[in-house]
Amino acid sequence: MSARRNDTGLLLHVSGADAASIQAGIRMALNAREQLPHVIVELVIQGPCVSFLTAGSVLEPHLAALDGGPVQVVACTNSLRSAGMEAGRLRGGVGVVPAAVAHLAARQFTGWAYVRV
Amino acid sequence: MSARRNDTGLLLHVSGADAASIQAGIRMALNAREQLPHVIVELVIQGPCVSFLTAGSVLEPHLAALDGGPVQVVACTNSLRSAGMEAGRLRGGVGVVPAAVAHLAARQFTGWAYVRV
Amino acid sequence: MSARRNDTGLLLHVSGADAASIQAGIRMALNAREQLPHVIVELVIQGPCVSFLTAGSVLEPHLAALDGGPVQVVACTNSLRSAGMEAGRLRGGVGVVPAAVAHLAARQFTGWAYVRV
Repeated sequence: MSARRNDTGLLLHVSGADAASIQAGIRMALNAREQLPHVIVELVIQGPCVSFLTAGSVLEPHLAALDGGPVQVVACTNSLRSAGMEAGRLRGGVGVVPAAVAHLAARQFTGWAYVRV
Repeated sequence: MSARRNDTGLLLHVSGADAASIQAGIRMALNAREQLPHVIVELVIQGPCVSFLTAGSVLEPHLAALDGGPVQVVACTNSLRSAGMEAGRLRGGVGVVPAAVAHLAARQFTGWAYVRV
Repeated sequence: MSARRNDTGLLLHVSGADAASIQAGIRMALNAREQLPHVIVELVIQGPCVSFLTAGSVLEPHLAALDGGPVQVVACTNSLRSAGMEAGRLRGGVGVVPAAVAHLAARQFTGWAYVRV
């Protein structure tokens, strides 16, 4: 059975207020990479938990485990705005997208898979 | 890179008991429309929170923001039954589907994207 | 409009610690089968709630409702390991996958739909 979609990427969607959800997302990203080494993994962070993506946050050691690796972390700009947080406070390597929901939809239209953390 | 799926629609799946989840879904729907104006957005409401879709509910002003716009709100008939609620009590403009889960699957089979609110 | 993806399967993703989430997943699986009889339904169980998949658990009667039917239940091996549980303790009929997240991605790449319970 051949794939009908590009098996290029996997979206891991984290939403909510808790640091634990981001930690779970990081664990899932690493598990996914181990099993599917050719699949790009993107951790899309939405909601108040974006505040844990700053340099020096309690999640720093967990996020550092992804540094230089193939898992991309992106924060929702709408969520940053709601949290009263400048994108400049995000730690190095964390990207931004204008709206998580639109990003999640656009990626799926090009064949990415989606898992809600 | 061309899209392999029809980029026609986006499912926003709300499930649970809280009015806040529906509010979050409405916000996400409006954000999605702003970024992806050609994409149809459907808010699929499942679980006890369907009771907030009545005329006169506390969510009335939020739901009214969608009136006449391109975001469709649909309630799960199984959930209405579990909540002991007649479909006739739903506010104008709210549609119904027999089972949210089947609707979410069928739409994805024709290329719709899915995001869990 | 013709389907662009194989309408062969539906993933129901259960994650977390609660037995109630698995019960909700079973209900959704049965509803999906009723509406979409030709679609394979797979209940993918991740997180501490895998401990409810043992023979004799409080969910036994609910899981038994799926026996011999077309809904497949699979547990995440990573989650079993985290719960300190041997796969041999799973009740008959419950399968395993190495990592839920990778399984959910791989299935979607071949056209399966995804719903988070």
